[in-house]
Amino acid sequence: MKKSLLFSLIFFSAAGLFSQNADSFFIKRIADEILTNGQAYENLRHLSKQIGPSLAGSQGMVKAEHWGLRLMLESGADKAWRQECMVPHWVRGGKDEMWSSQLVSANIPGKPDARLIKRYYDVVALGNSAGTPKAGLSAEVLLVNSFDELDKRKEEAKGKIVFFNYKFNPTFIRTFQSYGDAAKYRGNGPSAAAKYGAAGVIIRSMSHSVDNHPHTGATRYDSAYAKIPAVAVGLRDADFISDQLKKGKLSVTIKTNGYFLPDTIGHNIIGELKGTEFPEEIVTVGGHLDSWDNCEGAHDDGAGCVQAIEILRTFKVLGYKPKRTIRFVLFANEENGLRGGLKYAEEAKFKNEKHVLAIESDAGGFTPRGLGFSGSDEQFKKFMMWRELIAPYGCSEFYRGGGGADIGPLNRALGTPMAALHPDSQRYFDVHHARSDVFEAVNKRELELGAINMAALIYLVDKYGL
Amino acid sequence: MKKSLLFSLIFFSAAGLFSQNADSFFIKRIADEILTNGQAYENLRHLSKQIGPSLAGSQGMVKAEHWGLRLMLESGADKAWRQECMVPHWVRGGKDEMWSSQLVSANIPGKPDARLIKRYYDVVALGNSAGTPKAGLSAEVLLVNSFDELDKRKEEAKGKIVFFNYKFNPTFIRTFQSYGDAAKYRGNGPSAAAKYGAAGVIIRSMSHSVDNHPHTGATRYDSAYAKIPAVAVGLRDADFISDQLKKGKLSVTIKTNGYFLPDTIGHNIIGELKGTEFPEEIVTVGGHLDSWDNCEGAHDDGAGCVQAIEILRTFKVLGYKPKRTIRFVLFANEENGLRGGLKYAEEAKFKNEKHVLAIESDAGGFTPRGLGFSGSDEQFKKFMMWRELIAPYGCSEFYRGGGGADIGPLNRALGTPMAALHPDSQRYFDVHHARSDVFEAVNKRELELGAINMAALIYLVDKYGL
Repeated sequence: MKKSLLFSLIFFSAAGLFSQNADSFFIKRIADEILTNGQAYENLRHLSKQIGPSLAGSQGMVKAEHWGLRLMLESGADKAWRQECMVPHWVRGGKDEMWSSQLVSANIPGKPDARLIKRYYDVVALGNSAGTPKAGLSAEVLLVNSFDELDKRKEEAKGKIVFFNYKFNPTFIRTFQSYGDAAKYRGNGPSAAAKYGAAGVIIRSMSHSVDNHPHTGATRYDSAYAKIPAVAVGLRDADFISDQLKKGKLSVTIKTNGYFLPDTIGHNIIGELKGTEFPEEIVTVGGHLDSWDNCEGAHDDGAGCVQAIEILRTFKVLGYKPKRTIRFVLFANEENGLRGGLKYAEEAKFKNEKHVLAIESDAGGFTPRGLGFSGSDEQFKKFMMWRELIAPYGCSEFYRGGGGADIGPLNRALGTPMAALHPDSQRYFDVHHARSDVFEAVNKRELELGAINMAALIYLVDKYGL
Repeated sequence: MKKSLLFSLIFFSAAGLFSQNADSFFIKRIADEILTNGQAYENLRHLSKQIGPSLAGSQGMVKAEHWGLRLMLESGADKAWRQECMVPHWVRGGKDEMWSSQLVSANIPGKPDARLIKRYYDVVALGNSAGTPKAGLSAEVLLVNSFDELDKRKEEAKGKIVFFNYKFNPTFIRTFQSYGDAAKYRGNGPSAAAKYGAAGVIIRSMSHSVDNHPHTGATRYDSAYAKIPAVAVGLRDADFISDQLKKGKLSVTIKTNGYFLPDTIGHNIIGELKGTEFPEEIVTVGGHLDSWDNCEGAHDDGAGCVQAIEILRTFKVLGYKPKRTIRFVLFANEENGLRGGLKYAEEAKFKNEKHVLAIESDAGGFTPRGLGFSGSDEQFKKFMMWRELIAPYGCSEFYRGGGGADIGPLNRALGTPMAALHPDSQRYFDVHHARSDVFEAVNKRELELGAINMAALIYLVDKYGL
């Protein structure tokens, strides 16, 4: 080996080592700042407790937008703005109810008569669901465990309330796999049942929680069929109904009040740190600001919002001047329309923006385990080289494939590489879209570590490009 | 390459592939059984809610032993027995209290007098702590942030209550590092203060929780100095005291009632599946059955106990006949004596038993992240080869170095290799030794996944040896 070559190798590897050390050092500074002076948890407390539910079109949405814009500026954004988009405006309209009438023997001496009493179930109307008639919808329940079973028993469906009792599969280790597997019943169940003349639909909640909270989420009506009302039922109640139906018939009354108002104005909230060297190259990080109306939305996706803002705050506090422009985005209307994500991509395309990477946190504020990445082979190779630097902070599992609902449109419009934070998924579907998705279900350090891991990736992408 | 060699290579790699597939398949069966029919969570509910605290020497300890023995047999142990050992018998003796008297202005028109009111702090006596005089111990508080500071201010300590306000370091990512860093103040603080004539000790709780629960844990008196009473104080109260001392002096009264009764009889609870091929080779898996008296001990270490029993149940249900003998051990008295672990090792040595591996779960029932291993280089290499099979179930981080308090004596006595389950550590010190260590703080799936990962390792060690 020639001396000069040897020298170069030593020189470059020393330089590589130096920059590796410098990176490791700066990431440690990020982590120390967030773990010592982090604001994400208190910001989440405000968003969850003072603002609360923020479904598209609601007063909560407007309050959350104001909060987000102010916080972006307070946290040090060079500028912050609202990006307008029209959002759907579905309204629950009242309390969702479901009951059956049960013959109960009083068993009181001298009062031998049996009486009918109402047995209430813990239900929540699916998002976008039509309401029932004012007096409620009463019909016999037809339990099916799958679409296949419904197809086979289609003759029985007419006039009934079809109960999709498809179970959340406990044997998938990553719970998003169970969700991917079961969510079609929530999305397509109502129209699948309406196709055969059903009058209403009950969905077994998409969860393996140990409680009985019902879990909502968007349903989508196929315009070819009647828009029949649909509710999700808690798991213990789902098992109760299933047991009852083994003994005989069961009729229930459902009362829901959902309806749509005309589309209204919503906004993505965007904060920006301007790049010093390549200001036209943009890195986006965000979560969605809307949440379902039956919960605080602390995990889904208050966590993603406050993590994005925490990264902004931390870069600012550490005096970090990014080479590239970093955008911190709180997306509008992920839950029942995705209009925010679509708008962000549309404008980026219209303005011919150059997006280097988009990162999303929308899987809860749980302890981080990994980062997923979608991009070219070359980019993925680069991404994998950063694993060693990030792993000590929790994301030791680096996957091929990753993205998210809100950044998907940017990827499709511009081919922007995407990354997703993968927190541990075991507890997510205990609370997802249920009343238990509250601030108290979020652990401070787990939330902070999520921000640290994403900040580290953003720092590396900003410094080295992709 | 010779044909025969090529053939051998293909043959062996196919055989390797086959056994890899067979292993993968069996581990999936373990996982499916535990995730579908798991009993660990309901067993933990019983242990936490029906039995509760089970400190060595307490009635709870006796109840827990009975429960454990019965459950070992019900879960399919070939045999189960109690291994007797003498355990210390410390008794809290009553409610721990601490208060200061504050001058408060009533501010009621016509009643202008200021009054003294008591301000109570949330405290818990350290385990093994001596009690105060009946009327309480009243003295001025001397706050020090470290042993170094105490040494420098030793002249001030005489007759005072020394408050070790050493903070749990939030910047260590793995929280056990923070614990290792801070625990010396709990263990050695009282004697360090007594050395300089202090009358009592307050310890800042070893936690970074967002609540004010005080965290107990064992202290150790150095027989050279007076055994002065010691309490841990909740974090919010610790900050309050620190703030008060910045303004002036503060005197508090502490009332604790701890004392020792003579050592009493306790037991390790041991269940066994006899090996079919190498019955004299033993694999041990366990946790400790005792818990502090101020909590249910659901994470510390009910989780480890029910996980061990769940592995037994699962092997039995699946009809798995281990080659080697597998012992499921609920250790006695880990918290304030370690007599169970010591006894287990002592008897193993006395009987000249051959122990292949000991695995411990004593870091909470949280989502599993990794497995640590202590053994020879050759053994570690083998262990690392199993990573790929186990990682899909959560333990993707395989470390060199691992063990636990209860299996440490076996390692020291016989050189037995040790492994430890590493669950995610972010939430552990929120609840550790505090009243918040309750059943509700444990997630069903996280608990189950811990059992699955350990079961997989035991299966592989049983099949291939170490």
